[in-house]
Amino acid sequence: MGEIRKDPVVPRWVIIAEPREKRPTDYRSDGTVVSVTPKSCVLCPGNESNTPAEVYAIRPDGSPPNEPGWQVRVVPNKYPAVYRGGSLDRKGLGLLDSMRAYGVHEVIIETPDHDLQWDSMSAHHLKLVFQTFQARLRALRQDPILRYIVIFRNYKHEAGASLSHPHSQLIALPVVPLTPKEELKACRHYYLERERCLFCDLIYQEREVGKRIVYEGEKTLVLSSFAPRFPYELQILPSEHSHDFAEADESVIEDLAVTFNLILKGLKKLLNDPPYNLVLFTAPNPVPRPGRPDYWGTLPYDYHWHWLLLPRTTRIAGFELGSGFYIHHVDPERAAEELSSLIRAEVASAMR
Amino acid sequence: MGEIRKDPVVPRWVIIAEPREKRPTDYRSDGTVVSVTPKSCVLCPGNESNTPAEVYAIRPDGSPPNEPGWQVRVVPNKYPAVYRGGSLDRKGLGLLDSMRAYGVHEVIIETPDHDLQWDSMSAHHLKLVFQTFQARLRALRQDPILRYIVIFRNYKHEAGASLSHPHSQLIALPVVPLTPKEELKACRHYYLERERCLFCDLIYQEREVGKRIVYEGEKTLVLSSFAPRFPYELQILPSEHSHDFAEADESVIEDLAVTFNLILKGLKKLLNDPPYNLVLFTAPNPVPRPGRPDYWGTLPYDYHWHWLLLPRTTRIAGFELGSGFYIHHVDPERAAEELSSLIRAEVASAMR
Repeated sequence: MGEIRKDPVVPRWVIIAEPREKRPTDYRSDGTVVSVTPKSCVLCPGNESNTPAEVYAIRPDGSPPNEPGWQVRVVPNKYPAVYRGGSLDRKGLGLLDSMRAYGVHEVIIETPDHDLQWDSMSAHHLKLVFQTFQARLRALRQDPILRYIVIFRNYKHEAGASLSHPHSQLIALPVVPLTPKEELKACRHYYLERERCLFCDLIYQEREVGKRIVYEGEKTLVLSSFAPRFPYELQILPSEHSHDFAEADESVIEDLAVTFNLILKGLKKLLNDPPYNLVLFTAPNPVPRPGRPDYWGTLPYDYHWHWLLLPRTTRIAGFELGSGFYIHHVDPERAAEELSSLIRAEVASAMR
Repeated sequence: MGEIRKDPVVPRWVIIAEPREKRPTDYRSDGTVVSVTPKSCVLCPGNESNTPAEVYAIRPDGSPPNEPGWQVRVVPNKYPAVYRGGSLDRKGLGLLDSMRAYGVHEVIIETPDHDLQWDSMSAHHLKLVFQTFQARLRALRQDPILRYIVIFRNYKHEAGASLSHPHSQLIALPVVPLTPKEELKACRHYYLERERCLFCDLIYQEREVGKRIVYEGEKTLVLSSFAPRFPYELQILPSEHSHDFAEADESVIEDLAVTFNLILKGLKKLLNDPPYNLVLFTAPNPVPRPGRPDYWGTLPYDYHWHWLLLPRTTRIAGFELGSGFYIHHVDPERAAEELSSLIRAEVASAMR
């Protein structure tokens, strides 16, 4: 059983997991893909017995669990970073804080097709993937020990992927991690001062300025980050205020799928199919008791969910790790212009 | 001229530098080294005219600047992330904060020998490198706009190096960056409550517990981090309280060189010559006026300088970037045990 530990000086937590060295990988150390066939891929249909038993699946044909027939399938991670069971066992020894690595680590297998990435997946199928995320968020919120659920996608070896079959991951944690907590705090503070959502105001300002809007869908919006950590970093948000991705309407999810398809097609063309990370930022799990220090309201209505897309074409080096500053050389305004013109061309050619 | 920008939601700053795409590199995209000879290496002796004019050098033979004869040589980075000159031009446009990318970016060429890394460099020569860092810290503190100086070393392509010749870098900034600022704040808060240094107390507790001490030199100490972001992460600190690396005694610097030599030899053996980042954490530049919000005292005597050594054998993926949490699978206690026994063997064989 692993441990979650806090740095004794700064508010940074790490997970020291059980050994995961034996994890299989489809990548050589130089990042190239080992030849993986539907037969040898652990996530492909027909190999369901190679994963732990599924916890959720979309099976329109009514096929039984752990057999082929699924369109999206969710399984526990075979080499999890966190485990459920037992108590949290928070403790402090002088300056040293730790707790058990309690949590849930799942793999969302996004399609039976080994080669179908998000840029070429139909918007209809991508909608099913998003709806699966929503279903898992709702299901895991039943566990009152879990406080936040991180949903993320690592595309390619350079972005940390170990398997090449299209998949995302989910890690549910007993604490709200630093990065979303900072955003939640900023939004709460802003709301208390102004009774407006910080992200709604940011969208309003970015529309007025007009320099970093990459794409506007019917219900969603893509911004080139004003202060990106990586070149071509994007934020994908619902245009109307909405604090909780789990409760987003089907119409928003549909539009989100169309939007993602367009921007990933654009990025693929512009940056030669770059590695990327994708992360969901959404409301934490509800805490029913107002007295608790992690109480954000039954749900923090002052938050605004969004996806963060981080192309990984630069490296994180000593300066970044030692300062918290990031350096790169691509103007966010230039990134928005390049990407939006590619998307306009894509939309025009689709309409022809 | 680039810009320093703040994220509109969280306190994270980034530097959007002038295009640096044309930077030369000794590495292929798969991380292997292109054959570099002393003739073709821009940092080797004889090629001094390929770098900007030196700002500092150790030349025991009295040789003239920008000629061979140096032992350590400091030059401005030819492709700097920040530039000096003009005003800072801080501004806010609604939610969007920025300032000019004012600063200094230097390269410390650590030795004339293209193949002499820190693990095989003599402790005497490594002392000269550390003394060069001290000299640059003292010199750059003369500019009152500069608030903090980050000194770092990226070893190998995977850790962000672009050149293979042994070198470190220095970036002087007009703000105290997030990571050292959080440490400074924590130390100030701790001192105000207890009148003791947080790092001194941590050293005291780690000595009592005894599980994460990797090595104790005469004047310095190596800890396996309690909550490491990367496997085998180490902290190298002076055993006696000292807030400012620039003012550390020659005897401390001498011992630091011996210590570094030992732990880098150990890590090389244990992890097969791993890529790593090394970063100095020290007091910020003095601010003379107590009224300013960045006033930490003439110097923050409650801080404790240290080096952070981050072996880069794992990848930073979506979970880390989206949560601020880090995951890996190596117990810090096991890391301390493995590394300290290698070092003990090393010391014993050196004494024989």
